[in-house]
Amino acid sequence: MTSIWADEALTRDAFLGGRVTLLQPREGYRAGTDPVLLAAAIDATPGESVLEIGCGAGAAMICLAARVPELDLSGVEVQPGYADLARRNAEANGIAASIHTADLRALPGALKARRFDHVIANPPYFDRSRSRPAPNPAKETAFGAPLPLSEWIDAMARRVAPGGRLWLIQRADRLPEIFAALHGRMGGLAVRPLVSRQGRDAERVLVTARQSGRAAFRLAPPLVLHAGTRHVSDAADFTPEAESILRHGEKLRM
Amino acid sequence: MTSIWADEALTRDAFLGGRVTLLQPREGYRAGTDPVLLAAAIDATPGESVLEIGCGAGAAMICLAARVPELDLSGVEVQPGYADLARRNAEANGIAASIHTADLRALPGALKARRFDHVIANPPYFDRSRSRPAPNPAKETAFGAPLPLSEWIDAMARRVAPGGRLWLIQRADRLPEIFAALHGRMGGLAVRPLVSRQGRDAERVLVTARQSGRAAFRLAPPLVLHAGTRHVSDAADFTPEAESILRHGEKLRM
Repeated sequence: MTSIWADEALTRDAFLGGRVTLLQPREGYRAGTDPVLLAAAIDATPGESVLEIGCGAGAAMICLAARVPELDLSGVEVQPGYADLARRNAEANGIAASIHTADLRALPGALKARRFDHVIANPPYFDRSRSRPAPNPAKETAFGAPLPLSEWIDAMARRVAPGGRLWLIQRADRLPEIFAALHGRMGGLAVRPLVSRQGRDAERVLVTARQSGRAAFRLAPPLVLHAGTRHVSDAADFTPEAESILRHGEKLRM
Repeated sequence: MTSIWADEALTRDAFLGGRVTLLQPREGYRAGTDPVLLAAAIDATPGESVLEIGCGAGAAMICLAARVPELDLSGVEVQPGYADLARRNAEANGIAASIHTADLRALPGALKARRFDHVIANPPYFDRSRSRPAPNPAKETAFGAPLPLSEWIDAMARRVAPGGRLWLIQRADRLPEIFAALHGRMGGLAVRPLVSRQGRDAERVLVTARQSGRAAFRLAPPLVLHAGTRHVSDAADFTPEAESILRHGEKLRM
C-alpha cells in the first residue's frame, strides 16, 4: 500500500485564482475554502509576526503571505507528513516560513520563548466525544483531534503578544465553547458568520480577539458565499464578495 | 412636581398595529420595538405558562398574549409604578396576568414554588460598571440596573421547567456574557441577530435556550428591521419581515 504522503499520492491544487499552489495528500484532510477565508480575515501588516497552530500543508499561512508581504511566519503541525508538505509548499510558493513538527501542548522552546502579533488556527471541527471518527488517521487528526477546543484556544492565547490578535475559523455550532474559552481572558472579540446562502443559519464563524483589548464585542454581518437560494449546478456560484476573496486574494472585512 | 406615574403624565401607545394599547410614563423607560420582537420570537402554545422577569408596563407579555391565546401569564417587576401599569394594561387589553412587585433576587414564594414553560426577559441594556447612569431614576432602573446580566440569567434559568425555554433580548455586544452564563447550564441555544439595516453589525440579539436541551448551538440569519442602506425619512421604513412582525403580529422565526 502506497503511503498517503508519497509524491504519486499527492495532488497539486490552485488557490487564490492560481496565485498559490499547494501539494496535498489525495486521501486525508484537504484544504478547502476555510483556511483561505481565515487567511483573508487577518489584518496583518508587513513585518509582523504570525504563528499558525495546526498549519496542515500550509494553506492559510501561504495564502496570507500571498496578500501581505514580509511577514515573519511560523507554523506548528503535529503530523510530520503535513509539516513536511508545509515546508515544501512554502518554498515552492517563495514564502519564508519556519515549520515546527510539534503537539500544541508541547511547543518547542523557540516558539515558547516568543509572542506573536497574530496567532491563527483552523482547529479540528468535530468534538469526538460526540461524533464518530474518520476512518483515515491523517484525516481524523485534522478533523477530529482528541484535544478540546479550549486547549487550542488556550495554547493560542498564550502566544499572542500584548495588543496582538488571535484569529480562528470554526463550525458555528461551537461558538459557545469559543466564547467560554475567551470570555474574561481576551478582549476586542468579534465574530463574522459565514453562510452558504442568504438567509441560512451560519455554518462557520471567523472569530478574532485582542490580547489586553477592551473594545466591546461585535457580531458582524454574515459573509454569504454562494449566490441564489439553492445549489443549481456544480459550476462555482460564488457571490461577488466571496469571489473577490477566494479568487482575487482580497481582504475579508471582519 | 407631578409624579411620572400620575395619569396626566402617562401616554397611551399602540403596538402591533393597534391590537395592543399600553399606558406608559412619558418620562422613564418606554417600550419600543424590542419587547415586541421578544414577544414575537416565543414559540409558546395555548395553555403553556410564561413568566416575564422585569415586565415593566407589560409590553412583551401583552403582545405575546395578543398572538397566543390562553396562556398562563406571570410577571415580576421591581418598580411598583411599572408593576401597577402592567396590571392596568393587562386588564385594559383583556389579558389575565398575575403581576408581582418583587426583586428578581427575592421572588415571591408563589413564583419560587413553580417552574414555567417559558421564562422571558428584556434585561437592562447597560452595564453600569462601564457606563453613566440615566438621570431619571425609573429609566435608570429599567436601562441600567445594578445587577449583572448573569444574575438575570441565573434567576431565569431557575424558573424554567424541564424541556422549557428561556428567551431574552439584549444588546449584541453583551452576547459573550450571555454565553458565559448559559454555557454548560442550558442547551438548545440559538441566537437571532437583529440589525437596523442590511450589512450592519448586529445591534440586538434574541437568545433562546432549553432546559435540559442537547441540540447544537444555532446562529440564525439576521433579522433586518429597516429597508435601504440608510435612514432617509422619519416615515417608518420597516422591511416586509419586520412590518409583518411589528404591525401584523406575526411570529418571528428564530
